[in-house]
Amino acid sequence: MEKIIFTNVLGSFVFDENLRFIEKGEEKALMNKHKARESTIKQSKIILSNFKSKEYFEEFYKKNLVITKKGLKNSVKEDLLVTQTISLIKEQTRVINTLVKRLREWYEIYNPEFSKSVHDHESFVKLIIKKDKKELLKEIKIDEKNTMGADLEKRDLEPMMELAKEMEYLFKAKEKQTEYLEDLMKRTCPNVNEIAGAVIGAELINLAGSLKKLAEMPSSTIQLLGAEKALFRHMRTGAKVPKHGILIQHPLMAKTKKEIHGKVARALADKISIAAKVDYFKGKFVADKLKKMLEEKFS
Amino acid sequence: MEKIIFTNVLGSFVFDENLRFIEKGEEKALMNKHKARESTIKQSKIILSNFKSKEYFEEFYKKNLVITKKGLKNSVKEDLLVTQTISLIKEQTRVINTLVKRLREWYEIYNPEFSKSVHDHESFVKLIIKKDKKELLKEIKIDEKNTMGADLEKRDLEPMMELAKEMEYLFKAKEKQTEYLEDLMKRTCPNVNEIAGAVIGAELINLAGSLKKLAEMPSSTIQLLGAEKALFRHMRTGAKVPKHGILIQHPLMAKTKKEIHGKVARALADKISIAAKVDYFKGKFVADKLKKMLEEKFS
Repeated sequence: MEKIIFTNVLGSFVFDENLRFIEKGEEKALMNKHKARESTIKQSKIILSNFKSKEYFEEFYKKNLVITKKGLKNSVKEDLLVTQTISLIKEQTRVINTLVKRLREWYEIYNPEFSKSVHDHESFVKLIIKKDKKELLKEIKIDEKNTMGADLEKRDLEPMMELAKEMEYLFKAKEKQTEYLEDLMKRTCPNVNEIAGAVIGAELINLAGSLKKLAEMPSSTIQLLGAEKALFRHMRTGAKVPKHGILIQHPLMAKTKKEIHGKVARALADKISIAAKVDYFKGKFVADKLKKMLEEKFS
Repeated sequence: MEKIIFTNVLGSFVFDENLRFIEKGEEKALMNKHKARESTIKQSKIILSNFKSKEYFEEFYKKNLVITKKGLKNSVKEDLLVTQTISLIKEQTRVINTLVKRLREWYEIYNPEFSKSVHDHESFVKLIIKKDKKELLKEIKIDEKNTMGADLEKRDLEPMMELAKEMEYLFKAKEKQTEYLEDLMKRTCPNVNEIAGAVIGAELINLAGSLKKLAEMPSSTIQLLGAEKALFRHMRTGAKVPKHGILIQHPLMAKTKKEIHGKVARALADKISIAAKVDYFKGKFVADKLKKMLEEKFS
Protein backbone atom coordinates (compact mmCIF):
# COMPACT_ATOMS: atom_id res chain seq x y z
CA MET A 1 0.00 0.00 0.00
CA GLU A 2 1.35 3.38 -1.00
CA LYS A 3 1.29 6.11 1.64
CA ILE A 4 0.87 9.77 0.78
CA ILE A 5 2.22 12.58 2.90
CA PHE A 6 0.72 16.11 3.00
CA THR A 7 2.09 19.06 4.95
CA ASN A 8 0.54 22.38 5.92
CA VAL A 9 0.88 24.86 8.80
CA LEU A 10 -0.84 22.44 11.15
CA GLY A 11 1.76 19.74 10.60
CA SER A 12 2.20 16.69 8.43
CA PHE A 13 -0.59 14.24 7.65
CA VAL A 14 -0.38 10.76 6.22
CA PHE A 15 -3.03 9.37 3.88
CA ASP A 16 -3.54 6.04 2.16
CA GLU A 17 -3.73 5.79 -1.58
CA ASN A 18 -7.48 6.40 -1.49
CA LEU A 19 -6.69 9.66 0.31
CA ARG A 20 -8.13 8.43 3.58
CA PHE A 21 -6.54 9.96 6.65
CA ILE A 22 -4.21 7.57 8.50
CA GLU A 23 -2.17 9.57 10.96
CA LYS A 24 -0.94 13.03 11.93
CA GLY A 25 2.22 14.43 13.38
CA GLU A 26 5.56 15.58 12.22
CA GLU A 27 7.51 12.80 13.85
CA LYS A 28 5.32 9.97 12.72
CA ALA A 29 5.22 11.40 9.25
CA LEU A 30 8.98 11.63 9.17
CA MET A 31 9.33 8.07 10.41
CA ASN A 32 7.11 7.02 7.58
CA LYS A 33 8.83 9.23 5.11
CA HIS A 34 10.82 6.51 3.47
CA LYS A 35 7.62 4.65 2.87
CA ALA A 36 5.60 7.68 1.80
CA ARG A 37 5.69 10.05 -1.11
CA GLU A 38 4.43 13.64 -1.20
CA SER A 39 0.98 14.26 -2.54
CA THR A 40 0.61 15.35 -6.16
CA ILE A 41 -1.11 18.63 -6.90
CA LYS A 42 -4.31 16.85 -7.86
CA GLN A 43 -4.26 14.86 -4.64
CA SER A 44 -3.47 17.97 -2.61
CA LYS A 45 -6.60 19.66 -3.86
CA ILE A 46 -8.71 16.77 -2.66
CA ILE A 47 -6.87 16.56 0.65
CA LEU A 48 -7.24 20.31 1.23
CA SER A 49 -11.01 20.04 1.07
CA ASN A 50 -10.78 17.85 4.17
CA PHE A 51 -9.40 20.79 6.11
CA LYS A 52 -12.51 22.81 5.46
CA SER A 53 -14.23 21.02 8.31
CA LYS A 54 -14.93 23.02 11.46
CA GLU A 55 -12.65 20.93 13.62
CA TYR A 56 -9.59 22.42 11.92
CA PHE A 57 -10.86 25.97 11.83
CA GLU A 58 -9.74 27.06 15.28
CA GLU A 59 -6.39 25.39 14.89
CA PHE A 60 -5.81 27.19 11.58
CA TYR A 61 -6.83 30.48 13.18
CA LYS A 62 -4.36 30.10 16.02
CA LYS A 63 -1.50 29.07 13.77
CA ASN A 64 -2.28 31.93 11.41
CA LEU A 65 -2.05 34.39 14.30
CA VAL A 66 1.34 33.06 15.33
CA ILE A 67 2.62 33.34 11.77
CA THR A 68 1.26 36.86 11.33
CA LYS A 69 2.80 38.01 14.60
CA LYS A 70 6.15 36.56 13.63
CA GLY A 71 5.86 38.24 10.23
CA LEU A 72 5.13 41.60 11.81
CA LYS A 73 8.00 41.20 14.22
CA ASN A 74 10.43 40.51 11.40
CA SER A 75 9.05 43.24 9.18
CA VAL A 76 10.50 45.91 11.45
CA LYS A 77 13.29 47.10 9.27
CA GLU A 78 15.99 49.46 10.27
CA ASP A 79 14.63 52.18 8.01
CA LEU A 80 11.61 52.33 10.31
CA LEU A 81 14.02 53.45 13.01
CA VAL A 82 15.42 55.99 10.57
CA THR A 83 12.01 57.51 9.84
CA GLN A 84 11.11 57.55 13.55
CA THR A 85 14.34 59.28 14.48
CA ILE A 86 14.22 61.93 11.76
CA SER A 87 10.55 62.66 12.57
CA LEU A 88 11.48 63.08 16.22
CA ILE A 89 14.36 65.43 15.39
CA LYS A 90 12.07 67.56 13.25
CA GLU A 91 9.48 67.61 16.04
CA GLN A 92 12.16 68.58 18.54
CA THR A 93 13.21 71.45 16.30
CA ARG A 94 9.62 72.69 16.16
CA VAL A 95 9.23 72.32 19.93
CA ILE A 96 12.47 74.17 20.63
CA ASN A 97 11.47 77.02 18.33
CA THR A 98 8.06 77.47 19.94
CA LEU A 99 9.40 77.30 23.48
CA VAL A 100 12.38 79.57 22.81
CA LYS A 101 10.04 82.18 21.37
CA ARG A 102 7.99 81.93 24.53
CA LEU A 103 11.13 82.22 26.68
CA ARG A 104 12.20 85.31 24.77
CA GLU A 105 8.80 86.94 25.10
CA TRP A 106 8.89 86.28 28.82
CA TYR A 107 12.52 87.33 29.24
CA GLU A 108 11.88 90.56 27.33
CA ILE A 109 9.75 91.81 30.19
CA TYR A 110 12.99 91.73 32.18
CA ASN A 111 15.73 92.50 29.66
CA PRO A 112 14.41 93.33 26.17
CA GLU A 113 17.60 94.97 24.89
CA PHE A 114 19.72 91.87 25.35
CA SER A 115 17.17 89.50 23.82
CA LYS A 116 16.93 91.68 20.72
CA SER A 117 20.71 91.79 20.36
CA VAL A 118 21.27 88.00 20.15
CA HIS A 119 19.56 86.32 17.24
CA ASP A 120 20.81 82.76 17.60
CA HIS A 121 18.46 80.91 19.95
CA GLU A 122 21.02 78.54 21.41
CA SER A 123 23.57 81.25 22.21
CA PHE A 124 20.78 83.34 23.74
CA VAL A 125 19.76 80.52 26.08
CA LYS A 126 23.33 79.74 27.08
CA LEU A 127 24.18 83.38 27.78
CA ILE A 128 21.19 84.16 29.96
CA ILE A 129 21.92 81.06 32.04
CA LYS A 130 25.57 82.01 32.42
CA LYS A 131 25.37 85.74 33.10
CA ASP A 132 23.06 88.09 34.99
CA LYS A 133 21.24 91.12 33.65
CA LYS A 134 23.97 93.57 34.66
CA GLU A 135 26.71 91.63 32.89
CA LEU A 136 24.60 91.07 29.79
CA LEU A 137 23.75 94.77 29.50
CA LYS A 138 27.40 95.63 29.88
CA GLU A 139 28.19 93.31 27.00
CA ILE A 140 25.89 95.17 24.66
CA LYS A 141 27.07 98.50 26.14
CA ILE A 142 23.78 99.63 27.59
CA ASP A 143 23.65 101.45 30.89
CA GLU A 144 21.53 99.61 33.44
CA LYS A 145 19.63 102.84 34.12
CA ASN A 146 18.52 103.11 30.51
CA THR A 147 17.04 99.65 30.08
CA MET A 148 13.34 99.37 29.40
CA GLY A 149 13.25 96.02 31.17
CA ALA A 150 11.40 95.75 34.46
CA ASP A 151 13.13 94.70 37.66
CA LEU A 152 11.90 91.31 38.72
CA GLU A 153 12.04 89.69 42.13
CA LYS A 154 14.06 86.54 42.53
CA ARG A 155 10.93 84.40 42.86
CA ASP A 156 9.65 85.71 39.51
CA LEU A 157 13.02 85.28 37.87
CA GLU A 158 13.52 81.68 38.93
CA PRO A 159 10.77 80.06 36.82
CA MET A 160 12.08 81.96 33.81
CA MET A 161 15.54 80.56 34.40
CA GLU A 162 13.98 77.12 34.84
CA LEU A 163 12.57 77.44 31.34
CA ALA A 164 16.00 78.50 30.04
CA LYS A 165 17.51 75.36 31.58
CA GLU A 166 14.71 73.28 30.06
CA MET A 167 15.69 74.75 26.70
CA GLU A 168 19.34 73.94 27.25
CA TYR A 169 18.33 70.34 28.00
CA LEU A 170 16.20 70.18 24.86
CA PHE A 171 19.05 71.47 22.70
CA LYS A 172 21.29 68.76 24.12
CA ALA A 173 18.64 66.08 23.63
CA LYS A 174 18.25 67.05 19.99
CA GLU A 175 22.00 66.88 19.55
CA LYS A 176 22.08 63.38 21.01
CA GLN A 177 19.28 62.20 18.71
CA THR A 178 21.14 63.65 15.75
CA GLU A 179 24.26 61.74 16.75
CA TYR A 180 22.20 58.55 16.97
CA LEU A 181 20.71 59.23 13.53
CA GLU A 182 24.20 59.58 12.10
CA ASP A 183 25.21 56.24 13.60
CA LEU A 184 22.00 54.61 12.36
CA MET A 185 22.42 55.96 8.83
CA LYS A 186 26.02 54.77 8.67
CA ARG A 187 24.89 51.27 9.63
CA THR A 188 21.75 50.96 7.52
CA CYS A 189 22.38 53.05 4.43
CA PRO A 190 26.06 53.95 4.33
CA ASN A 191 25.90 55.00 0.68
CA VAL A 192 22.93 57.35 0.98
CA ASN A 193 24.49 58.70 4.18
CA GLU A 194 27.79 59.44 2.48
CA ILE A 195 26.27 61.34 -0.42
CA ALA A 196 23.25 63.06 1.13
CA GLY A 197 24.41 63.35 4.72
CA ALA A 198 22.57 61.83 7.68
CA VAL A 199 19.77 64.37 8.12
CA ILE A 200 18.97 64.94 4.44
CA GLY A 201 19.32 61.21 3.72
CA ALA A 202 16.97 60.30 6.53
CA GLU A 203 14.52 62.99 5.45
CA LEU A 204 14.54 61.59 1.90
CA ILE A 205 13.78 58.09 3.23
CA ASN A 206 11.04 59.59 5.38
CA LEU A 207 9.53 61.50 2.46
CA ALA A 208 9.71 58.45 0.20
CA GLY A 209 8.18 56.25 2.91
CA SER A 210 10.97 53.71 3.23
CA LEU A 211 14.41 52.86 1.87
CA LYS A 212 12.74 50.37 -0.47
CA LYS A 213 10.49 53.05 -1.92
CA LEU A 214 13.41 55.48 -2.26
CA ALA A 215 15.36 52.77 -4.11
CA GLU A 216 12.46 52.23 -6.49
CA MET A 217 11.96 55.92 -7.24
CA PRO A 218 13.13 57.54 -10.47
CA SER A 219 15.83 60.06 -9.69
CA SER A 220 13.66 62.88 -11.07
CA THR A 221 11.22 62.21 -8.23
CA ILE A 222 14.03 62.16 -5.69
CA GLN A 223 15.17 65.52 -7.04
CA LEU A 224 11.80 67.03 -6.09
CA LEU A 225 11.14 65.25 -2.77
CA GLY A 226 10.05 67.91 -0.32
CA ALA A 227 8.95 70.29 -3.09
CA GLU A 228 5.46 68.82 -3.33
CA LYS A 229 3.75 72.12 -2.54
CA ALA A 230 5.66 73.99 -5.23
CA LEU A 231 5.05 71.16 -7.67
CA PHE A 232 1.29 71.21 -7.16
CA ARG A 233 1.31 75.00 -7.37
CA HIS A 234 3.07 74.63 -10.71
CA MET A 235 0.48 72.14 -11.96
CA ARG A 236 -2.44 74.22 -10.71
CA THR A 237 -1.39 77.72 -11.61
CA GLY A 238 1.41 77.29 -14.12
CA ALA A 239 3.92 78.80 -11.67
CA LYS A 240 7.59 77.94 -12.15
CA VAL A 241 8.56 74.27 -12.00
CA PRO A 242 10.49 73.66 -8.79
CA LYS A 243 14.08 72.54 -9.37
CA HIS A 244 14.78 70.97 -6.00
CA GLY A 245 13.09 69.88 -2.81
CA ILE A 246 15.00 69.38 0.40
CA LEU A 247 18.18 68.82 -1.63
CA ILE A 248 18.54 72.62 -1.53
CA GLN A 249 19.87 72.10 2.03
CA HIS A 250 22.76 69.99 0.75
CA PRO A 251 26.23 71.51 1.36
CA LEU A 252 27.04 71.27 -2.37
CA MET A 253 24.32 73.87 -3.01
CA ALA A 254 26.06 76.43 -0.80
CA LYS A 255 29.27 75.85 -2.73
CA THR A 256 27.74 76.37 -6.18
CA LYS A 257 26.09 79.31 -7.94
CA LYS A 258 22.34 79.74 -7.85
CA GLU A 259 22.04 79.47 -11.63
CA ILE A 260 23.21 75.85 -11.66
CA HIS A 261 21.28 74.69 -8.55
CA GLY A 262 18.84 72.82 -10.79
CA LYS A 263 21.73 70.94 -12.38
CA VAL A 264 23.33 70.22 -9.01
CA ALA A 265 20.02 68.89 -7.67
CA ARG A 266 19.66 66.59 -10.68
CA ALA A 267 23.20 65.26 -10.30
CA LEU A 268 22.73 64.76 -6.55
CA ALA A 269 19.43 62.95 -7.09
CA ASP A 270 21.10 60.68 -9.69
CA LYS A 271 23.80 59.60 -7.27
CA ILE A 272 21.41 59.28 -4.33
CA SER A 273 19.17 57.09 -6.46
CA ILE A 274 22.11 54.76 -7.16
CA ALA A 275 23.17 54.85 -3.50
CA ALA A 276 19.66 53.95 -2.32
CA LYS A 277 19.52 50.95 -4.65
CA VAL A 278 22.93 49.73 -3.46
CA ASP A 279 21.94 50.19 0.19
CA TYR A 280 18.59 48.48 -0.24
CA PHE A 281 20.15 45.42 -1.86
CA LYS A 282 22.95 45.45 0.73
CA GLY A 283 25.63 46.15 -1.84
CA LYS A 284 29.15 47.32 -1.18
CA PHE A 285 30.26 50.81 -0.27
CA VAL A 286 30.49 52.72 -3.57
CA ALA A 287 29.56 56.18 -2.35
CA ASP A 288 33.13 57.43 -2.14
CA LYS A 289 33.44 57.05 -5.91
CA LEU A 290 30.02 58.60 -6.56
CA LYS A 291 30.84 61.50 -4.29
CA LYS A 292 34.16 62.08 -6.03
CA MET A 293 32.37 62.24 -9.38
CA LEU A 294 30.03 64.87 -8.01
CA GLU A 295 32.81 66.94 -6.53
CA GLU A 296 34.78 66.85 -9.75
CA LYS A 297 31.75 67.89 -11.76
CA PHE A 298 31.02 70.93 -9.63
CA SER A 299 34.34 72.40 -8.65
CA MET B 1 10.89 143.34 39.80
CA GLU B 2 8.64 140.29 39.92
CA LYS B 3 10.19 137.02 38.82
CA ILE B 4 8.16 134.26 37.20
CA ILE B 5 9.07 130.58 37.39
CA PHE B 6 8.04 128.00 34.81
CA THR B 7 8.73 124.27 35.04
CA ASN B 8 8.63 121.53 32.41
CA VAL B 9 10.45 118.21 31.74
CA LEU B 10 13.63 120.09 30.89
CA GLY B 11 13.80 121.76 34.27
CA SER B 12 12.79 125.09 35.79
CA PHE B 13 13.15 128.43 34.05
CA VAL B 14 13.01 131.89 35.51
CA PHE B 15 11.55 134.82 33.59
CA ASP B 16 11.16 138.49 34.29
CA GLU B 17 7.74 140.14 34.34
CA ASN B 18 7.96 140.84 30.62
CA LEU B 19 8.46 137.07 30.15
CA ARG B 20 12.06 137.46 29.12
CA PHE B 21 14.23 134.51 29.98
CA ILE B 22 16.59 135.18 32.92
CA GLU B 23 18.04 131.90 34.11
CA LYS B 24 17.62 128.13 34.02
CA GLY B 25 18.27 125.32 36.47
CA GLU B 26 16.41 123.61 39.25
CA GLU B 27 18.75 124.80 41.99
CA LYS B 28 18.90 128.41 40.96
CA ALA B 29 15.15 128.43 40.48
CA LEU B 30 14.64 127.00 43.94
CA MET B 31 17.03 129.52 45.42
CA ASN B 32 14.98 132.20 43.81
CA LYS B 33 11.70 130.59 44.72
CA HIS B 34 10.89 132.93 47.57
CA LYS B 35 11.28 135.80 45.21
CA ALA B 36 9.42 134.19 42.30
CA ARG B 37 5.84 133.11 41.65
CA GLU B 38 4.63 130.44 39.26
CA SER B 39 3.49 131.49 35.85
CA THR B 40 -0.23 131.95 35.22
CA ILE B 41 -1.91 129.93 32.51
CA LYS B 42 -1.89 132.87 30.16
CA GLN B 43 1.80 133.49 30.80
CA SER B 44 2.57 129.77 30.39
CA LYS B 45 1.10 129.82 26.90
CA ILE B 46 3.42 132.59 25.89
CA ILE B 47 6.40 130.96 27.58
CA LEU B 48 5.67 127.61 25.91
CA SER B 49 5.97 129.17 22.46
CA ASN B 50 9.61 129.88 23.34
CA PHE B 51 10.26 126.16 23.56
CA LYS B 52 9.24 125.63 19.94
CA SER B 53 12.68 126.78 18.85
CA LYS B 54 15.00 124.12 17.40
CA GLU B 55 17.52 124.47 20.17
CA TYR B 56 15.13 122.74 22.61
CA PHE B 57 13.95 120.05 20.22
CA GLU B 58 16.74 117.54 20.80
CA GLU B 59 16.63 118.05 24.53
CA PHE B 60 12.87 117.43 24.58
CA TYR B 61 13.33 114.32 22.47
CA LYS B 62 15.90 112.84 24.84
CA LYS B 63 13.88 113.60 27.93
CA ASN B 64 10.79 112.15 26.33
CA LEU B 65 12.65 108.89 25.64
CA VAL B 66 13.74 108.65 29.26
CA ILE B 67 10.20 109.20 30.47
CA THR B 68 8.76 106.66 28.02
CA LYS B 69 11.32 104.05 29.03
CA LYS B 70 10.54 104.62 32.68
CA GLY B 71 6.85 104.36 31.93
CA LEU B 72 7.29 101.08 30.06
CA LYS B 73 9.43 99.69 32.87
CA ASN B 74 6.77 100.49 35.44
CA SER B 75 3.93 99.26 33.26
CA VAL B 76 5.04 95.67 33.67
CA LYS B 77 2.33 94.45 35.92
CA GLU B 78 2.22 91.16 37.66
CA ASP B 79 -0.63 89.96 35.49
CA LEU B 80 1.80 90.02 32.57
CA LEU B 81 3.74 87.34 34.43
CA VAL B 82 0.46 85.47 34.90
CA THR B 83 -0.35 85.48 31.18
CA GLN B 84 3.23 84.49 30.27
CA THR B 85 3.20 81.59 32.72
CA ILE B 86 -0.19 80.21 31.73
CA SER B 87 0.73 80.47 28.04
CA LEU B 88 3.92 78.57 28.74
CA ILE B 89 2.07 75.85 30.65
CA LYS B 90 -0.39 75.42 27.78
CA GLU B 91 2.50 75.28 25.31
CA GLN B 92 4.26 72.71 27.48
CA THR B 93 1.11 70.60 27.52
CA ARG B 94 0.95 70.68 23.72
CA VAL B 95 4.66 69.87 23.44
CA ILE B 96 4.38 66.96 25.86
CA ASN B 97 1.40 65.54 23.97
CA THR B 98 3.14 65.70 20.59
CA LEU B 99 6.37 64.21 21.87
CA VAL B 100 4.69 61.48 23.92
CA LYS B 101 2.74 60.42 20.84
CA ARG B 102 6.03 60.21 18.95
CA LEU B 103 7.61 58.23 21.80
CA ARG B 104 4.70 55.80 21.79
CA GLU B 105 4.83 55.33 18.02
CA TRP B 106 8.53 54.63 18.29
CA TYR B 107 8.22 52.39 21.33
CA GLU B 108 5.43 50.40 19.68
CA ILE B 109 7.96 49.00 17.22
CA TYR B 110 9.50 47.36 20.26
CA ASN B 111 6.61 46.64 22.60
CA PRO B 112 3.20 47.52 21.12
CA GLU B 113 1.13 45.49 23.59
CA PHE B 114 2.33 47.39 26.64
CA SER B 115 1.94 50.82 25.05
CA LYS B 116 -1.67 50.00 24.12
CA SER B 117 -2.43 48.83 27.66
CA VAL B 118 -1.46 52.06 29.45
CA HIS B 119 -3.49 55.10 28.43
CA ASP B 120 -2.11 57.71 30.82
CA HIS B 121 0.94 59.30 29.20
CA GLU B 122 2.81 60.09 32.39
CA SER B 123 2.44 56.59 33.87
CA PHE B 124 3.47 55.13 30.52
CA VAL B 125 6.69 57.15 30.50
CA LYS B 126 7.50 56.35 34.13
CA LEU B 127 6.89 52.64 33.67
CA ILE B 128 9.01 52.16 30.56
CA ILE B 129 11.89 53.95 32.28
CA LYS B 130 11.57 51.81 35.39
CA LYS B 131 11.02 48.35 33.92
CA ASP B 132 12.29 46.38 30.95
CA LYS B 133 10.23 44.75 28.21
CA LYS B 134 10.09 41.36 29.94
CA GLU B 135 8.77 42.79 33.21
CA LEU B 136 6.26 45.01 31.44
CA LEU B 137 4.89 42.12 29.37
CA LYS B 138 4.58 40.04 32.53
CA GLU B 139 2.53 42.83 34.10
CA ILE B 140 -0.03 42.72 31.32
CA LYS B 141 0.16 38.90 31.28
CA ILE B 142 1.52 38.47 27.79
CA ASP B 143 4.05 35.77 27.02
CA GLU B 144 7.26 37.21 25.62
CA LYS B 145 7.06 34.76 22.75
CA ASN B 146 3.69 36.07 21.64
CA THR B 147 4.55 39.76 21.42
CA MET B 148 4.40 41.41 18.04
CA GLY B 149 7.17 43.78 19.08
CA ALA B 150 10.54 43.52 17.40
CA ASP B 151 13.70 42.81 19.34
CA LEU B 152 15.91 45.84 19.31
CA GLU B 153 19.62 46.06 19.96
CA LYS B 154 20.81 48.08 22.92
CA ARG B 155 22.15 50.85 20.71
CA ASP B 156 18.71 51.25 19.07
CA LEU B 157 16.95 51.11 22.42
CA GLU B 158 19.07 53.76 24.10
CA PRO B 159 17.91 56.79 22.08
CA MET B 160 14.31 55.73 22.69
CA MET B 161 14.96 55.65 26.41
CA GLU B 162 16.65 59.05 26.12
CA LEU B 163 13.40 60.39 24.72
CA ALA B 164 11.48 58.80 27.60
CA LYS B 165 13.78 60.56 30.07
CA GLU B 166 13.32 63.81 28.17
CA MET B 167 9.57 63.35 28.61
CA GLU B 168 9.97 62.71 32.32
CA TYR B 169 11.95 65.95 32.58
CA LEU B 170 9.27 67.86 30.67
CA PHE B 171 6.52 66.52 32.93
CA LYS B 172 8.50 67.72 35.95
CA ALA B 173 9.18 71.11 34.36
CA LYS B 174 5.48 71.59 33.70
CA GLU B 175 4.72 70.68 37.30
CA LYS B 176 7.22 73.27 38.55
CA GLN B 177 5.74 75.98 36.34
CA THR B 178 2.27 75.09 37.62
CA GLU B 179 3.50 75.44 41.21
CA TYR B 180 4.96 78.84 40.34
CA LEU B 181 1.67 79.88 38.74
CA GLU B 182 -0.18 78.92 41.92
CA ASP B 183 2.21 81.04 43.99
CA LEU B 184 1.91 83.95 41.55
CA MET B 185 -1.89 83.81 41.51
CA LYS B 186 -2.04 83.75 45.31
CA ARG B 187 0.11 86.88 45.42
CA THR B 188 -1.44 88.87 42.59
CA CYS B 189 -5.09 87.86 42.51
CA PRO B 190 -5.88 85.91 45.65
CA ASN B 191 -9.63 86.26 45.19
CA VAL B 192 -9.79 85.05 41.58
CA ASN B 193 -7.37 82.28 42.56
CA GLU B 194 -9.57 81.11 45.44
CA ILE B 195 -12.74 80.90 43.38
CA ALA B 196 -11.51 79.85 39.93
CA GLY B 197 -8.34 77.98 40.89
CA ALA B 198 -4.87 78.96 39.67
CA VAL B 199 -4.99 77.48 36.17
CA ILE B 200 -8.55 78.48 35.25
CA GLY B 201 -8.07 81.89 36.87
CA ALA B 202 -4.88 82.53 34.94
CA GLU B 203 -6.49 81.32 31.72
CA LEU B 204 -9.39 83.74 32.25
CA ILE B 205 -6.94 86.63 32.73
CA ASN B 206 -5.11 85.46 29.61
CA LEU B 207 -8.32 85.25 27.57
CA ALA B 208 -9.48 88.65 28.80
CA GLY B 209 -6.07 90.18 28.09
CA SER B 210 -5.25 91.42 31.57
CA LEU B 211 -6.61 91.51 35.11
CA LYS B 212 -7.85 95.04 34.40
CA LYS B 213 -9.84 93.89 31.39
CA LEU B 214 -11.23 90.92 33.31
CA ALA B 215 -12.32 93.28 36.10
CA GLU B 216 -14.10 95.49 33.58
CA MET B 217 -15.91 92.65 31.86
CA PRO B 218 -19.60 91.91 32.44
CA SER B 219 -19.97 88.55 34.11
CA SER B 220 -21.95 87.24 31.13
CA THR B 221 -18.79 87.67 29.02
CA ILE B 222 -16.67 85.93 31.65
CA GLN B 223 -19.14 83.05 31.58
CA LEU B 224 -18.37 82.48 27.90
CA LEU B 225 -14.60 83.16 27.85
CA GLY B 226 -13.01 80.32 25.90
CA ALA B 227 -16.26 79.52 24.08
CA GLU B 228 -15.67 82.06 21.31
CA LYS B 229 -15.81 79.43 18.57
CA ALA B 230 -19.12 78.04 19.74
CA LEU B 231 -20.47 81.56 20.17
CA PHE B 232 -19.60 82.57 16.62
CA ARG B 233 -20.99 79.28 15.33
CA HIS B 234 -24.19 80.13 17.14
CA MET B 235 -24.32 83.59 15.57
CA ARG B 236 -23.52 82.29 12.11
CA THR B 237 -25.55 79.13 11.91
CA GLY B 238 -28.06 79.44 14.69
CA ALA B 239 -26.50 76.49 16.53
CA LYS B 240 -27.10 76.22 20.28
CA VAL B 241 -25.91 79.11 22.44
CA PRO B 242 -22.88 77.94 24.44
CA LYS B 243 -23.45 77.96 28.20
CA HIS B 244 -19.85 77.99 29.34
CA GLY B 245 -16.30 78.44 28.10
CA ILE B 246 -13.34 77.19 30.04
CA LEU B 247 -15.40 77.34 33.24
CA ILE B 248 -16.56 73.83 32.28
CA GLN B 249 -13.20 72.67 33.67
CA HIS B 250 -14.02 74.03 37.13
CA PRO B 251 -14.29 71.33 39.83
CA LEU B 252 -17.82 72.52 40.71
CA MET B 253 -18.95 71.31 37.27
CA ALA B 254 -17.86 67.76 38.00
CA LYS B 255 -19.85 67.85 41.24
CA THR B 256 -23.10 69.05 39.65
CA LYS B 257 -25.52 67.59 37.12
CA LYS B 258 -25.16 68.41 33.45
CA GLU B 259 -28.60 70.01 33.30
CA ILE B 260 -27.60 72.81 35.64
CA HIS B 261 -24.11 73.44 34.20
CA GLY B 262 -25.36 76.65 32.58
CA LYS B 263 -26.59 77.88 35.95
CA VAL B 264 -23.36 76.88 37.67
CA ALA B 265 -21.32 78.70 35.02
CA ARG B 266 -23.38 81.84 35.49
CA ALA B 267 -22.99 81.77 39.26
CA LEU B 268 -19.24 81.11 38.95
CA ALA B 269 -18.81 83.95 36.48
CA ASP B 270 -20.71 86.27 38.84
CA LYS B 271 -18.38 85.56 41.73
CA ILE B 272 -15.25 85.62 39.57
CA SER B 273 -16.32 89.01 38.24
CA ILE B 274 -16.54 90.35 41.80
CA ALA B 275 -13.24 88.68 42.73
CA ALA B 276 -11.47 90.22 39.72
CA LYS B 277 -12.69 93.71 40.66
CA VAL B 278 -11.53 93.28 44.25
CA ASP B 279 -8.14 91.96 43.11
CA TYR B 280 -7.63 94.69 40.56
CA PHE B 281 -8.35 97.44 43.10
CA LYS B 282 -6.20 95.64 45.69
CA GLY B 283 -9.15 95.01 47.97
CA LYS B 284 -9.30 92.61 50.90
CA PHE B 285 -9.66 88.84 50.73
CA VAL B 286 -13.38 88.20 50.33
CA ALA B 287 -13.26 85.04 48.23
CA ASP B 288 -13.84 82.70 51.17
CA LYS B 289 -17.31 84.20 51.64
CA LEU B 290 -18.05 84.17 47.91
CA LYS B 291 -16.92 80.56 47.68
CA LYS B 292 -19.09 79.55 50.61
CA MET B 293 -22.12 81.11 48.91
CA LEU B 294 -21.41 79.10 45.77
CA GLU B 295 -20.97 75.88 47.67
CA GLU B 296 -24.20 76.38 49.60
CA LYS B 297 -26.10 77.12 46.41
CA PHE B 298 -24.97 73.94 44.62
CA SER B 299 -24.85 71.22 47.26
